[in-house]
Amino acid sequence: MIQTLEWTDQGVRFIDQTKLPTEEIYLMCKTHQEVADAIRNMVVRGAPAIGVAAAMGIALGMKTSKAETVGELKRELDQISDNIGKTRPTAVNLFWAIRRMQEKFERVRVRPVAQIKNELIEEAKRMHAEDIAANQAMGRHGATLMPSDGGVLTHCNAGALATAGYGTALGVIRAAVEAGKKIHVYADETRPFLQGSRLTAWELMKDGIPTTVISDNMAGAMMKQGKIGAIVVGADRIAANGDVANKIGTYTVAVLAKENGIPFYVAAPISTVDMACADGSKIPIEQRNAREITHIAGKQMVPDGVSIENPAFDVTPAKYVAAIITERGIARAPFEESLRKLAGSETAVEA
Amino acid sequence: MIQTLEWTDQGVRFIDQTKLPTEEIYLMCKTHQEVADAIRNMVVRGAPAIGVAAAMGIALGMKTSKAETVGELKRELDQISDNIGKTRPTAVNLFWAIRRMQEKFERVRVRPVAQIKNELIEEAKRMHAEDIAANQAMGRHGATLMPSDGGVLTHCNAGALATAGYGTALGVIRAAVEAGKKIHVYADETRPFLQGSRLTAWELMKDGIPTTVISDNMAGAMMKQGKIGAIVVGADRIAANGDVANKIGTYTVAVLAKENGIPFYVAAPISTVDMACADGSKIPIEQRNAREITHIAGKQMVPDGVSIENPAFDVTPAKYVAAIITERGIARAPFEESLRKLAGSETAVEA
Repeated sequence: MIQTLEWTDQGVRFIDQTKLPTEEIYLMCKTHQEVADAIRNMVVRGAPAIGVAAAMGIALGMKTSKAETVGELKRELDQISDNIGKTRPTAVNLFWAIRRMQEKFERVRVRPVAQIKNELIEEAKRMHAEDIAANQAMGRHGATLMPSDGGVLTHCNAGALATAGYGTALGVIRAAVEAGKKIHVYADETRPFLQGSRLTAWELMKDGIPTTVISDNMAGAMMKQGKIGAIVVGADRIAANGDVANKIGTYTVAVLAKENGIPFYVAAPISTVDMACADGSKIPIEQRNAREITHIAGKQMVPDGVSIENPAFDVTPAKYVAAIITERGIARAPFEESLRKLAGSETAVEA
Repeated sequence: MIQTLEWTDQGVRFIDQTKLPTEEIYLMCKTHQEVADAIRNMVVRGAPAIGVAAAMGIALGMKTSKAETVGELKRELDQISDNIGKTRPTAVNLFWAIRRMQEKFERVRVRPVAQIKNELIEEAKRMHAEDIAANQAMGRHGATLMPSDGGVLTHCNAGALATAGYGTALGVIRAAVEAGKKIHVYADETRPFLQGSRLTAWELMKDGIPTTVISDNMAGAMMKQGKIGAIVVGADRIAANGDVANKIGTYTVAVLAKENGIPFYVAAPISTVDMACADGSKIPIEQRNAREITHIAGKQMVPDGVSIENPAFDVTPAKYVAAIITERGIARAPFEESLRKLAGSETAVEA
């Protein structure tokens, strides 16, 4: 079992995703500031993992707080929440996690300070456990959509490393393999951070699931050659109308899928659905440092003076999405209805 | 003026494209074997440049030959042609250049050995000059298709570095800029060899043409955001029906262009059109070494044990191509007719 992030007595422990696949190094964050840096620097990444990391960062800030009154503790909570909320703007799970910790605080604020701290630590640990359970449920639902024998393409890493464990898109693939389906994964390398080649391939190799890494610009050729039976990706934020913000390049994969008649699936927990966001045009898109494009492994790859764009995400309009797989069931178009139904329900239903 | 390759008294001199953009180093090839290696190792690349390099490699082999009879010289010519023909299978210009040198030999074989050698050297130099002139003509035709003020996306490098000079796709952009059009180039970085970030950006910076480098998977987002008014790429081989083999990822760009209502143009000399090839399915696609995907700048980016695909090219069906720009004029659908007309003509016509 891959331990993406873990609550320990010493602090929050992360597998350092900037060092994979050649080095398996763990980083212990002993302060909430260190957790915020780990999120910002992509030591931990992937929308659900960012959510759990944020909750654990807040819990760590509470644990180490010297506050003696509930008022002081609340001011620290707000300041820590603010700081962590500024790390990555696109993944809505980050804000969902902060809100959940804030709400928990409100529910227990009548108790002594020491007990409030414990309750928030327990809440963060619960979110970690719930995320794994949600991914396993997502896997059970989504496995039915995978081909019984064929290639499945994925983009970026929506695996154990993007979550508390098991994965969203890769959870669907894992569940399909566990159910006896013969799946060969095609992993887009996913420039610039190479989550596909470095992370997706690493965790699928650990599980013995056959995997071929391709550069992003080969996905179209693989589809046209008939090698891909389905596509499944994760999401960083899903608007109420089913538009999906996910790793840059996802839109391209979706357009290619449509052109080649291949179903394009999104697997994401309900916490990724932002019902307050009407459509994809309202989702803020993070621009990252130009150096991720200009340099690879420390080597300069572009001439001096050239401009760079480096949006970390793009928006795939709902019309390209065959289905959204959640822990509560599968949503299909019209997504306004199906997502509202799933977001409002507490039990697993087939929308 | 960028000197991609040059005939000199010492041998054939190449700018080493594996070292750009941070180092401008020239490589002198003193034997035809060294020229074949330069083609194989992509010191020189780009279909038209490969064609001229092959001709110069043959000329160099002839020049350094110790053959005393025409029969001996012809056997050497065949052996050199064979060797150079095995370097890269997709670019048809390679085989076109070899055939042209063979035909030249046949036309002059009644002359003394020393004179035959000179004639072949002159033929190779003529092909170099003709290539530049063809690109300039292509530029004049193609410039009319470029937006007067807007973004133009290109993939890979179809520039001065892919030809004897001026470029095919970048020649069209250069001619449009020379004609006063305000063009901002978006250059796909073009994994795995990074011809876009390393080579296209380098030569456009030299010319002061504003350029933004993006990773391949950002092209879709740029198109959807309305930043791209036209797309122009080169070609390694064009089938008689207008199907285009070009750098891997070109098919993806073409599909995205169609989906976003953006014209997709191909600029290539007539020598790239293979009238003997009925359609794209007959074009051999070179598979290159997995290491181009697994390692970047010497650093391992995928875990051990993972599979790799590394096709160097893909085929874009003719239906995605708005026009093919040649030195003899512009071909439009139905391409069977328009290409046949241009291939058969010797003067510039608008098909």
